[in-house]
Amino acid sequence: MKSYAIGVDVGGTTVKIGLFQVDGQLIQKWEISTDKREGGSRVLSDIAASLKEKMREHQISPDDVEGVGIGVPGAVQDFSLVHGAVNIGWGEVRISDILSGLLYEIPVRAANDANCAALGEMWMGGARGYQTLVMATLGTGVGGGIVIDGKVLEGAFGAAGEIGHICVEPLEEKACGCGGHGHLEQYASATGIVRLAAEILEQKTAPSLMRDIQEPLNAKEVFHCAKRGDDLALQVVDRASRYLGRALAAISCVVDPQIILIGGGVSKAGSMLTDAVTAYYRQYAFFASRSAPIRLAVLGNDAGICGAARLVLPD
Amino acid sequence: MKSYAIGVDVGGTTVKIGLFQVDGQLIQKWEISTDKREGGSRVLSDIAASLKEKMREHQISPDDVEGVGIGVPGAVQDFSLVHGAVNIGWGEVRISDILSGLLYEIPVRAANDANCAALGEMWMGGARGYQTLVMATLGTGVGGGIVIDGKVLEGAFGAAGEIGHICVEPLEEKACGCGGHGHLEQYASATGIVRLAAEILEQKTAPSLMRDIQEPLNAKEVFHCAKRGDDLALQVVDRASRYLGRALAAISCVVDPQIILIGGGVSKAGSMLTDAVTAYYRQYAFFASRSAPIRLAVLGNDAGICGAARLVLPD
Repeated sequence: MKSYAIGVDVGGTTVKIGLFQVDGQLIQKWEISTDKREGGSRVLSDIAASLKEKMREHQISPDDVEGVGIGVPGAVQDFSLVHGAVNIGWGEVRISDILSGLLYEIPVRAANDANCAALGEMWMGGARGYQTLVMATLGTGVGGGIVIDGKVLEGAFGAAGEIGHICVEPLEEKACGCGGHGHLEQYASATGIVRLAAEILEQKTAPSLMRDIQEPLNAKEVFHCAKRGDDLALQVVDRASRYLGRALAAISCVVDPQIILIGGGVSKAGSMLTDAVTAYYRQYAFFASRSAPIRLAVLGNDAGICGAARLVLPD
Repeated sequence: MKSYAIGVDVGGTTVKIGLFQVDGQLIQKWEISTDKREGGSRVLSDIAASLKEKMREHQISPDDVEGVGIGVPGAVQDFSLVHGAVNIGWGEVRISDILSGLLYEIPVRAANDANCAALGEMWMGGARGYQTLVMATLGTGVGGGIVIDGKVLEGAFGAAGEIGHICVEPLEEKACGCGGHGHLEQYASATGIVRLAAEILEQKTAPSLMRDIQEPLNAKEVFHCAKRGDDLALQVVDRASRYLGRALAAISCVVDPQIILIGGGVSKAGSMLTDAVTAYYRQYAFFASRSAPIRLAVLGNDAGICGAARLVLPD
């Protein structure tokens, strides 16, 4: 096996890049900004230029790089074809061929960013030693990554693991960003938690620490108030946790994972979140899957580059 | 490759057995009764005796059999260890080792029966040409089988594809057979459809063809009445289809299959069922997965033996 693997995580603001040894050790990580002008047409050449420079700096020959893995915020098919990544401005892009062509023909594999994060946590994070896992990433939206027998589940249309769009509240009148109604993302994302908090503050007259917070309220503050015992904030956390626990139970009826991880910005709430979600998961899960542990992801923003690098290594 | 593969489908009343050529052609199928006495302890030796006799009859040498696949109504781990099959009386049984030992050491692989049915439909049935599929089996209960890249998804605790236990109605007060509440099985199984019909007949005073049916009402009669335009029966079919369509949409957010099949006794309702389920699926599914076709399974009771035989063939 060669000595290096490179992981790239394309986000709407920055592209994170990590140079790894094939044993998982991170040699260096850095960021470049995402140039979204002209439909994001410069993003891949910017990545290639940055990587070439860094390889020169470290005196790494292309022959010694196992491959470049790249995570993108969109659906990916056959580990190469991106089907639209709206945050970047991309439509259909055969990303692997293009990036490989710009980069000494080093093999390139692409995957959805949430899938990469799950793979990264399996390789070097909170799911080390496990082979079959589900990771829910609670950020602005809710993403999900599924790994089966050590391999990322991509799905027929590149949409496997899109768990944020599971309908958990069929009677919801407000629409999800995707146009659907009552999707998990509407309750368990940072945005969703703030929305639930705003609703309860409007509906109820009870005093709440959340009322004293200078606008705009964010999910971190909601958890902060809940940890201080604020009743309305506790109700918000309870509701978000119930929806997430129920969705995770449904997911377990499908893939029956060994372990479930919760990552993303909202997961900084820590054990208050995992304890509540676990309790609801145990309540709703099919008995055979009920004992799967629910733990916090540990790699934070590095999960994406880590999993992207893992994508190009043999199983 | 050898010439033959054998598929066994263990049910609560009969054991179905099929002798296949490795190209999928069924040479002969037959049944033996399931001897549930003494915790089902004779079932495997009965299967072995019957197979030995049939192999003699067809002058098939053990060396010419690729393997014996066996589907069981319970959770199976590592394609060998059954974790309880209550309908048979089995607790934990290392089924592959035992059956292989009774049968000239021919390799034996086991899987959950609904998973076998999905694999069978992929090999020789309604999902030929597809590699990633979900099959919902609507019988007395609701089972599910998931195939990813041509391989049965088993799950960490042998419970992958237990889609009948996805919670689709959190407010349901009545309990599912597993003890949970509001599970898909409570609405979309034959039993569930009859229950919905009984409820609506009790709640509403409107006339209905269903009222004229000699007890006990069954799911086939409900569909029969619906096809004749009976309003209450149509409401029952609509409700069951909505729950199933919504559950399938959730499943697609997890595995994103190429195709979805509906099998089991209830699927004899035909296009009335698939049309209604498809409409709700399209409404609830994430846009990327929305175009996956929903079709009827075609192998009927043979799906289990067919998929069990496929289980022992190379991918």
